[in-house]
Amino acid sequence: MEFQITHRDPGSHARAGKIITAHSQISTPVFMPVGTAGSVKGIHQRELTEDLDTPVILGNTYHLYLRPGTDTLKKAGGLHRFMGWDRTILTDSGGYQVFSMASNRKLTQEGARFSSHIDGSKHLFTPESVVDIQRVIGSDIMMALDECTPWPCDMEYAEKSLELTHGWLERGWTHYRNTGPAYDYEQAYFPIVQGSVYPDLRRASADFVSRLGAEGNAIGGLSVGEPANEMYAMVEVVNAILPEDRPRYLMGVGTPVNILESIALGVDMFDCVLPTRNGRNGMLFTTEGIINIKNRKWMDDFSPVDPGGHSFVDMQYNRAYLRHLIISGEMLGAQIASLHNLGFYLWLVKKAFEEIKCGTFAEWKTKMIPALSTRL
Amino acid sequence: MEFQITHRDPGSHARAGKIITAHSQISTPVFMPVGTAGSVKGIHQRELTEDLDTPVILGNTYHLYLRPGTDTLKKAGGLHRFMGWDRTILTDSGGYQVFSMASNRKLTQEGARFSSHIDGSKHLFTPESVVDIQRVIGSDIMMALDECTPWPCDMEYAEKSLELTHGWLERGWTHYRNTGPAYDYEQAYFPIVQGSVYPDLRRASADFVSRLGAEGNAIGGLSVGEPANEMYAMVEVVNAILPEDRPRYLMGVGTPVNILESIALGVDMFDCVLPTRNGRNGMLFTTEGIINIKNRKWMDDFSPVDPGGHSFVDMQYNRAYLRHLIISGEMLGAQIASLHNLGFYLWLVKKAFEEIKCGTFAEWKTKMIPALSTRL
Repeated sequence: MEFQITHRDPGSHARAGKIITAHSQISTPVFMPVGTAGSVKGIHQRELTEDLDTPVILGNTYHLYLRPGTDTLKKAGGLHRFMGWDRTILTDSGGYQVFSMASNRKLTQEGARFSSHIDGSKHLFTPESVVDIQRVIGSDIMMALDECTPWPCDMEYAEKSLELTHGWLERGWTHYRNTGPAYDYEQAYFPIVQGSVYPDLRRASADFVSRLGAEGNAIGGLSVGEPANEMYAMVEVVNAILPEDRPRYLMGVGTPVNILESIALGVDMFDCVLPTRNGRNGMLFTTEGIINIKNRKWMDDFSPVDPGGHSFVDMQYNRAYLRHLIISGEMLGAQIASLHNLGFYLWLVKKAFEEIKCGTFAEWKTKMIPALSTRL
Repeated sequence: MEFQITHRDPGSHARAGKIITAHSQISTPVFMPVGTAGSVKGIHQRELTEDLDTPVILGNTYHLYLRPGTDTLKKAGGLHRFMGWDRTILTDSGGYQVFSMASNRKLTQEGARFSSHIDGSKHLFTPESVVDIQRVIGSDIMMALDECTPWPCDMEYAEKSLELTHGWLERGWTHYRNTGPAYDYEQAYFPIVQGSVYPDLRRASADFVSRLGAEGNAIGGLSVGEPANEMYAMVEVVNAILPEDRPRYLMGVGTPVNILESIALGVDMFDCVLPTRNGRNGMLFTTEGIINIKNRKWMDDFSPVDPGGHSFVDMQYNRAYLRHLIISGEMLGAQIASLHNLGFYLWLVKKAFEEIKCGTFAEWKTKMIPALSTRL
């Protein structure tokens, strides 16, 4: 994996650049659509490439490990071939899903024990096994196993959890270094900074993570309920320590405003379920603000979904029709809203790239933020 | 509406031709994908036109009347504009849904009273009101209000029901003749032959219907559970009476085999939820037979969904992946299977057209039928 920073914004810590993996070239800042179980919900692979020009998507190790399982993925030759996707794939380690989806979970130094949310079967993720699983998945970028602390979280718990995460990280990193790719291309491994909302813990974690010299570094445990300002404060603390010349990935973030603020703090990579999950529920992100399409005010609005939109659905369909589909529970409503929202998110980071290139990112962000948070 | 028969099969009653409406030219035999509430479930309008070259879709008056309602549809300028579809639309009258979905339904000479399945609100469909509603929907082909008798159905009930249907038909036809289109194009009105599985009733109904001289005629009340042979027998009886020079529409039919057998009996138009509904549940129709993709035998089958398939999904995705998506309840699974199945159905009728044109339909049908009913 290569990373080059090509431009820096004079008015903020924002940077523009590119990541090159064996599968694609990725302009940064980048937003990665979430393809939990090997599919971005409601979106064809063709739409991701041809309509949205998505350079990278995210898969979930927890889900893919349970279904279809590593046997099938190995026989397929990895997730790229299995799902028919020839661009970059990043996989999370499964840690987050163990805490949010599985039952009977138990964290020890050894790893994370849990019961499958599908059939109750018992499993163990270790720092080493999630490397092995991600090797088989064949993701271009693999993530370390960590504990994502909840919010609020007292300092004592956060400290203990960080110790666990760091212990896991050392083992995972060693295993990563001692193993090779499952297929004929390199796989990177990103460690994750934790430490809840405690600056000292975050600093210690960023130091610990930085020392590994990984090809990229992630910030986890944010956007879990804490006020946005606390999140930004932590990103600022961490980014002051993480190496400048490696991509920084803020996991699970976030709203369009969160993304612009974090780009300003020097973050390069994002993923979030908001555009697809909230889209399925009728929330549309646009340059003018947020639309709840279920609202009666759109009932007889036959104007395009988003006249300034960036995918074919924006002019093909009108708001009244989309409202009707979402209210009627028609799949097509979820498909349209998801495609629209992903188009918006991908446009947003592409536009950020352009603004950074022109040295006007900070002013542009200041202008955009009020509009992005407006409820239409 | 125009209808021309261009070819006749020497070995059967099959005919090939075209229907021309204000919105599209339709080769017959034709299969019409079902777009119940103004959307073919899981399929973008662009996929219907560009990938499947669908000339006509079906909408449901019952559903569209309840949601989004005639006010919105009128303001939109009709369903074509509302949903962004510029080809032909046929709407059923809503009779069938009143019986299958609504509660507290009561049929009288006046019409059909029912409570909405959505909010329990009370409504009345009359032969006249369903014309008015379909005028507002703006369908190119409107259907008469009828009672679709269940199966089994004793002769006494079938006789009484037919009397009701014919009474409704006379009123609907009169109202149709006395009203004009809601927009700037003509709308046809098809009467429906009923009579359950009783040849005498079917003959009487076909006579009654034929005398109207409508632009096309439909056969209803079949494919409701009766053995296929009884269905074919009824179609044969009815088609001997219905005018040769008008299209014949067999409502709600059916499996690929049903469609070929009915084409051989002189039917021109079909609609059915099978390709989309069964697709969502993992059933795939192919030239080699029927696949239940949930079956374990497809778990590690990485060959294309259908190497002989007719839409982009067939080569883009593999069987193991589709199985994974359907089993995991991923929307994309339903989207792929629906698109595949519609591609297959549309190919089937197009191929039937070609075979009729070449005078080889009967032999081709004989060859196809064993394959079409094979379980793979």
